Amino acid sequence: MAGFGFSIVATDVKARAGTIRTPRGEIRTPAFMPVGTAATVKAMLPESVRATGADILLGNTYHLMLRPGAERIDRLGGLHRFMNWDRPILTDSGGFQVMSLSGLRKLTERGVTFRSHIDGSRHELTPERSMEIQRLLGSDIAMCFDECPALPADRDRIAASMALSMRWAARSRDAFGDRPGHALFGIQQGGLDRDLRAQSAEALTAIGFDGYAVGGLAVGEGQQAMFDVLDFAPSMLPADRPRYLMGVGKPDDIVGAVARGIDMMDCVLPSRSGRTGQAFTPRGVVNIKNARHADDPRPLDETCDCPACQSYSRAYLHHVFRAQEMISGMLLTWHNLRYYQRLMEGMRTAIAAGTFAGWQDDFHATRALGDIEPL
Amino acid sequence: MAGFGFSIVATDVKARAGTIRTPRGEIRTPAFMPVGTAATVKAMLPESVRATGADILLGNTYHLMLRPGAERIDRLGGLHRFMNWDRPILTDSGGFQVMSLSGLRKLTERGVTFRSHIDGSRHELTPERSMEIQRLLGSDIAMCFDECPALPADRDRIAASMALSMRWAARSRDAFGDRPGHALFGIQQGGLDRDLRAQSAEALTAIGFDGYAVGGLAVGEGQQAMFDVLDFAPSMLPADRPRYLMGVGKPDDIVGAVARGIDMMDCVLPSRSGRTGQAFTPRGVVNIKNARHADDPRPLDETCDCPACQSYSRAYLHHVFRAQEMISGMLLTWHNLRYYQRLMEGMRTAIAAGTFAGWQDDFHATRALGDIEPL
Ligand SMILES: [Zn+2]
Ligand SMILES: [Zn+2]
Repeated sequence: MAGFGFSIVATDVKARAGTIRTPRGEIRTPAFMPVGTAATVKAMLPESVRATGADILLGNTYHLMLRPGAERIDRLGGLHRFMNWDRPILTDSGGFQVMSLSGLRKLTERGVTFRSHIDGSRHELTPERSMEIQRLLGSDIAMCFDECPALPADRDRIAASMALSMRWAARSRDAFGDRPGHALFGIQQGGLDRDLRAQSAEALTAIGFDGYAVGGLAVGEGQQAMFDVLDFAPSMLPADRPRYLMGVGKPDDIVGAVARGIDMMDCVLPSRSGRTGQAFTPRGVVNIKNARHADDPRPLDETCDCPACQSYSRAYLHHVFRAQEMISGMLLTWHNLRYYQRLMEGMRTAIAAGTFAGWQDDFHATRALGDIEPL
Repeated sequence: MAGFGFSIVATDVKARAGTIRTPRGEIRTPAFMPVGTAATVKAMLPESVRATGADILLGNTYHLMLRPGAERIDRLGGLHRFMNWDRPILTDSGGFQVMSLSGLRKLTERGVTFRSHIDGSRHELTPERSMEIQRLLGSDIAMCFDECPALPADRDRIAASMALSMRWAARSRDAFGDRPGHALFGIQQGGLDRDLRAQSAEALTAIGFDGYAVGGLAVGEGQQAMFDVLDFAPSMLPADRPRYLMGVGKPDDIVGAVARGIDMMDCVLPSRSGRTGQAFTPRGVVNIKNARHADDPRPLDETCDCPACQSYSRAYLHHVFRAQEMISGMLLTWHNLRYYQRLMEGMRTAIAAGTFAGWQDDFHATRALGDIEPL
């Protein structure tokens, strides 16, 4: 596909470091994608998101189709111009969130009809409509429309759902068509079951996509079960295409996923945590509302180069959180997004150097130290 | 007072353009001071406040003494370091807000005892304690502790309050002492009464201050009554010292005050309005939540150089306001603060050019046009 490509520059056991090329810029992998649900990464200006090191954002089809609407965004010049982000955007298909957020869903072979969680209005999503919306948004990487059952579910339910998702994947591929410079990713389903995962990978590979997501994880199964699937699922997918683990995750989830061959991830955790006073650091999570920080002149994380750590004390961050000032969410979100990007940078460097095993040992050992001692 | 000074570089009828020099930088007058109530200008990073053109911020003694506490801020290196703003800060005395926000106040000759509006804890403010708090904060320009009755009030009440404020002004001056590079401003009281304003000005001038505020206005008396007082009150104060009108105001209040000889102002209006979807433009106030903006690709204000106007459409600003995204308050506050600074820049330039009368005609004529036509 002209204008879109993926090259692996280094591997270290199963971990891969590489580059996704798009007409809107390169994406260094392993990549973490901040989530811009409603055409904004909450509490951040897009130039600040870029300053954290993000190469690509994720946009949510479900949210954007309901408000402000895909046709409206198209008339306004597309999502990039609308939200002032000119680098790559990946959009999900809406399939996951229509099942988790909307009311009065009805699922058929054709697609899903549902009511908006915002105003109760009626809408339909099908593979064809999802592809149309993602095209109207101007997405650089579109995702197939799929169905993802909540876990635990019995094998027949998961098998039937996976089979439906594979039929929808074929319809998504047809509807997407040939769009040079734009990519379509397939989504592997099959829950925790190796045979179903293999069947799904085979079906997707037969259709042929520009990249492949491991779907249906991070839906409540727990880290060990997720890692057990990631021990076999990524290698079922074409090695020369990017592999995307959707909706993951905590820092140790991300490290474990990269170690198992994942190239791309997204999660609301760093931004959501930033707004609730939780900060990620190499030594674990700091709860800035804790009274121990009230008089602490030290930075949140002395190893971090973000504005929150360079220009403010823990005492200040504690104060503005307690005073419910917007700058609290602004600074902690920036810090957390920067922490995630530093994590990815560290892994990319270690994979390129062939030292990823040692890097992982350091990562876990530093986390085990816990936060710096109170003064 | 070494390190603090004021020079007038141009006058145009009663309007003055000048420079206040402080060890932390110059303040171009007429100056608008954004309000940083709780050690943050709400929704803004301090470098962004500076980028709007602000030379000085206002901090609130009442809020900061209650949370996080003046002694704590002092231990942490002072308010400038705490909030990451190294340019001048003016602090109010706490007198106004203790009367408007706190509960169970008791006023005596000595000062005011009150309960915190945050946690009900008991506190006392006196001229001496107010000076101590402002010193602990590291304020560059401190304000005398005064009492300001709400209007309307009868003449005897206003006269007694003014006399008390003048006794407190003398105690404030004594308690402040000699602090090179730091300034203390007196506050003229006397309500709408010319004789009381003259008595107050005489008392303050006899004590001697580095600058003088016109206090007791913008408390509900209306613009015409305020302008009527400003027609005589500023000229009662020493012409070679800066004149500060506290808590003002709307754009046309500010223009009218500058025309009457005011050099400095502060107000929460641009930042508060930004958070409620109200944007100031040369053609008046734009209510961004109005449905007319939903599909409008034009900038909020095509004459404005702020990020909200340079990089986003009205449609985007409408969308993020309706979606209650933080970026709405961030962008509109930035725009409004920039609008206020552009207003001050325009007045300074016109006063220096001797064209302030014509500038005012243009200002009012452009406002009268109203917002651009809907598409
Ligand atoms: Zn940081
Ligand atoms: Zn603007």
